[in-house]
Amino acid sequence: MLFHVEMTVNLPPDMDGERASALKAEEKAMAQQLQRDGVWRHLWRIAGQYANISIFDVDSPAHLHDVLSRLPLFPYMDLRVRALCRHASSVWEDDR
Amino acid sequence: MLFHVEMTVNLPPDMDGERASALKAEEKAMAQQLQRDGVWRHLWRIAGQYANISIFDVDSPAHLHDVLSRLPLFPYMDLRVRALCRHASSVWEDDR
Amino acid sequence: MLFHVEMTVNLPPDMDGERASALKAEEKAMAQQLQRDGVWRHLWRIAGQYANISIFDVDSPAHLHDVLSRLPLFPYMDLRVRALCRHASSVWEDDR
Amino acid sequence: MLFHVEMTVNLPPDMDGERASALKAEEKAMAQQLQRDGVWRHLWRIAGQYANISIFDVDSPAHLHDVLSRLPLFPYMDLRVRALCRHASSVWEDDR
Amino acid sequence: MLFHVEMTVNLPPDMDGERASALKAEEKAMAQQLQRDGVWRHLWRIAGQYANISIFDVDSPAHLHDVLSRLPLFPYMDLRVRALCRHASSVWEDDR
Amino acid sequence: MLFHVEMTVNLPPDMDGERASALKAEEKAMAQQLQRDGVWRHLWRIAGQYANISIFDVDSPAHLHDVLSRLPLFPYMDLRVRALCRHASSVWEDDR
Amino acid sequence: MLFHVEMTVNLPPDMDGERASALKAEEKAMAQQLQRDGVWRHLWRIAGQYANISIFDVDSPAHLHDVLSRLPLFPYMDLRVRALCRHASSVWEDDR
Amino acid sequence: MLFHVEMTVNLPPDMDGERASALKAEEKAMAQQLQRDGVWRHLWRIAGQYANISIFDVDSPAHLHDVLSRLPLFPYMDLRVRALCRHASSVWEDDR
Amino acid sequence: MLFHVEMTVNLPPDMDGERASALKAEEKAMAQQLQRDGVWRHLWRIAGQYANISIFDVDSPAHLHDVLSRLPLFPYMDLRVRALCRHASSVWEDDR
Amino acid sequence: MLFHVEMTVNLPPDMDGERASALKAEEKAMAQQLQRDGVWRHLWRIAGQYANISIFDVDSPAHLHDVLSRLPLFPYMDLRVRALCRHASSVWEDDR
Repeated sequence: MLFHVEMTVNLPPDMDGERASALKAEEKAMAQQLQRDGVWRHLWRIAGQYANISIFDVDSPAHLHDVLSRLPLFPYMDLRVRALCRHASSVWEDDR
Repeated sequence: MLFHVEMTVNLPPDMDGERASALKAEEKAMAQQLQRDGVWRHLWRIAGQYANISIFDVDSPAHLHDVLSRLPLFPYMDLRVRALCRHASSVWEDDR
Repeated sequence: MLFHVEMTVNLPPDMDGERASALKAEEKAMAQQLQRDGVWRHLWRIAGQYANISIFDVDSPAHLHDVLSRLPLFPYMDLRVRALCRHASSVWEDDR
Repeated sequence: MLFHVEMTVNLPPDMDGERASALKAEEKAMAQQLQRDGVWRHLWRIAGQYANISIFDVDSPAHLHDVLSRLPLFPYMDLRVRALCRHASSVWEDDR
Repeated sequence: MLFHVEMTVNLPPDMDGERASALKAEEKAMAQQLQRDGVWRHLWRIAGQYANISIFDVDSPAHLHDVLSRLPLFPYMDLRVRALCRHASSVWEDDR
Repeated sequence: MLFHVEMTVNLPPDMDGERASALKAEEKAMAQQLQRDGVWRHLWRIAGQYANISIFDVDSPAHLHDVLSRLPLFPYMDLRVRALCRHASSVWEDDR
Repeated sequence: MLFHVEMTVNLPPDMDGERASALKAEEKAMAQQLQRDGVWRHLWRIAGQYANISIFDVDSPAHLHDVLSRLPLFPYMDLRVRALCRHASSVWEDDR
Repeated sequence: MLFHVEMTVNLPPDMDGERASALKAEEKAMAQQLQRDGVWRHLWRIAGQYANISIFDVDSPAHLHDVLSRLPLFPYMDLRVRALCRHASSVWEDDR
Repeated sequence: MLFHVEMTVNLPPDMDGERASALKAEEKAMAQQLQRDGVWRHLWRIAGQYANISIFDVDSPAHLHDVLSRLPLFPYMDLRVRALCRHASSVWEDDR
Repeated sequence: MLFHVEMTVNLPPDMDGERASALKAEEKAMAQQLQRDGVWRHLWRIAGQYANISIFDVDSPAHLHDVLSRLPLFPYMDLRVRALCRHASSVWEDDR
């Protein structure tokens, strides 16, 4: 099932540079693995924001929470989650 | 280029039933044509809302406005528009 | 899977009395059937509000949307939906 | 009587790890005792949030305040409290 | 137990004058009866607003809901309800 | 004249424990003196919040400001102030 | 004592023209009388808004409410009221 | 002097078609005259909204209010006004 | 021309006491000079808030910005600015 | 294509003075280069705010994000981005 997630990252500007770089690298690695696994279906940057809009394809809300709460940047993020379903006007049977 | 659009429809509950059905049918026809044309890339229902989340692939902001403002339900919608771009952590060159 | 839904009803105060009574009676009948079916797990009144807080147990976001959008008062409701999952501190394996 | 409580936890990301773990363990122990005592009736995680939705069954608003303000994470929480009562459409006499 | 209630009245300005006067008279009569019964403990006008701040002394949230939802102006009101309890710095054992 | 004041206290959770206790003790002493003087007429805890709702009986807005700004916790509080007056439906001539 | 009042006028655009003109003329006459009486000390238009910012000099909150609630446009206004007092940095003893 | 104005137009969807067309034509004529006069310096559509962002070059706030309040669609608009001035990092002496 | 400015001061409660006193003394001296110069026309305390409402009489928006941004407490303030003009119902030609 | 960007700068007031000056100087140099390049078309100060309103002329949302995220003050800014297009009532073919 699909969930729409907006993530806004609030890293403190005075965070140690090496620590920030390490966190971002771990975040990127995990994000890319989840994309390759078909869980993180879409990942877009919102222009002008340190924020993204993402589509997750998960087995359950518990699966979604498990994935999001393991992200290295999770403690620094504001998240907004909305459940999606097929739209009656969609031309696709399965729009992932 | 991609835009993320949230549309919330506010049809007055006391609108004449035939008029409402006609508007919705026209909206659906136009939405499906735009999907087939590759302009309206994704169209998802937000669960529990008379609202959708959509991804448009257009030539310019003017193109986007032209498409949205022609929708039969446009006068009854609240719209939120955000420009998207490729995310540095995306595994896809072109995530449409 | 569980969803937390807040429903605020905005019936126009000048709605025809018979029409309002009929809508409310249909709403009640459908709500009670859904409770008996195990889909609408909890239904509480928020004290002092024409609003409720409900827990739904559904198969998918699509199932939830189908149930909510068929409610007779749906066109008059503001809804807020949030996906729930088991809390790590819960003493229950399955808290429905 | 029942109260609906939303708790959002805002632990500072740079809190000492041991201190945070100890606080969370104390919170969990107290939450589980309160559940076993029948005071904390339901405890659900909101998917994607460091937040929960809970139903408390207490003797009075003073009882509720006493319970909430003793929680080890209380100083780090935003709380929203709403009084519940039986809904006229509920099929249950006592929906706890 | 005490509840703090803010009531903002939104009578449509074009409501029939006689109907509005009748509603307000019924509201006043019921409010005064509830004050004499000791249920509606305090009733203050917010200066410059068609709104009041009130303290109710009721047996339960269900009692509060029953009282509020019977008010003749209830369909025209926005209500905000908060449960109160004794403050540790109060000099009164029972501040009603 | 009466003013309705909501006070939300935001003590930093990492404040030195002795300093916090001292501040709270001074606050309590001053609050109780003002209650005995008839200035701070009512003081209620909002259930589940580090916040109170209070009624002040003062000579003027300047008097109110003088009282509030001398409170030891004033620098840590968010305050909301509203002027009250007698409600036309009150059964009391002077509801303090 | 001084109160700061913001008034935003929401006349329905489809109100009968004569009715609207009459209301505005009555409002203007009453506003000017109150200015001449020294009660409505300042009256400024907010540029670009059908709204004003005003300073009232009244005997009490009850006096303020009496004045505001008699205004012909009161049923069509959103009002925001704040009590003012002398600022410690003011060079005027009495800044009215 | 320059003012930044956002105008959101809220024409009721059920307004008589001829009336709406006439209003829009008058609005357009006046907007174009003001542009030719150098008063309405910039006029941009916000993509996907029945709204614009405009820059006005006027003699005073009173001049601005006079211009805005004469617009035929003024009664149907929400306006937000902000005063602009030269930015210290601008490369232009006079950025109109 | 007149501008309406609301200033809310957010000095960190743990700021060094001498530093805070010095800043406030400089702020007061500058505020009083600007009042004597006729630029800062009115300065009122909002009762119960570390905030003021002020009326400035300046030559231009640039003049206003210059004055406000030089205030010693400017880096600690939230400001809200609105341009004022003469109200058609004012009895004064020039209400400063 | 044009984007409307509002930037609000939140430099911590206790930032080291030299560090702040260096950041602002780098920001200014980059802003001026982008203006000379025709990318940053307009840059206005909002009177009374440490904030600006800007018009960017870029090739794509990705171009916009690239420009904004390289600004030295980007980590300290709140940004709001809106896509613009030609307004049907504009007298200019190309209003940049």
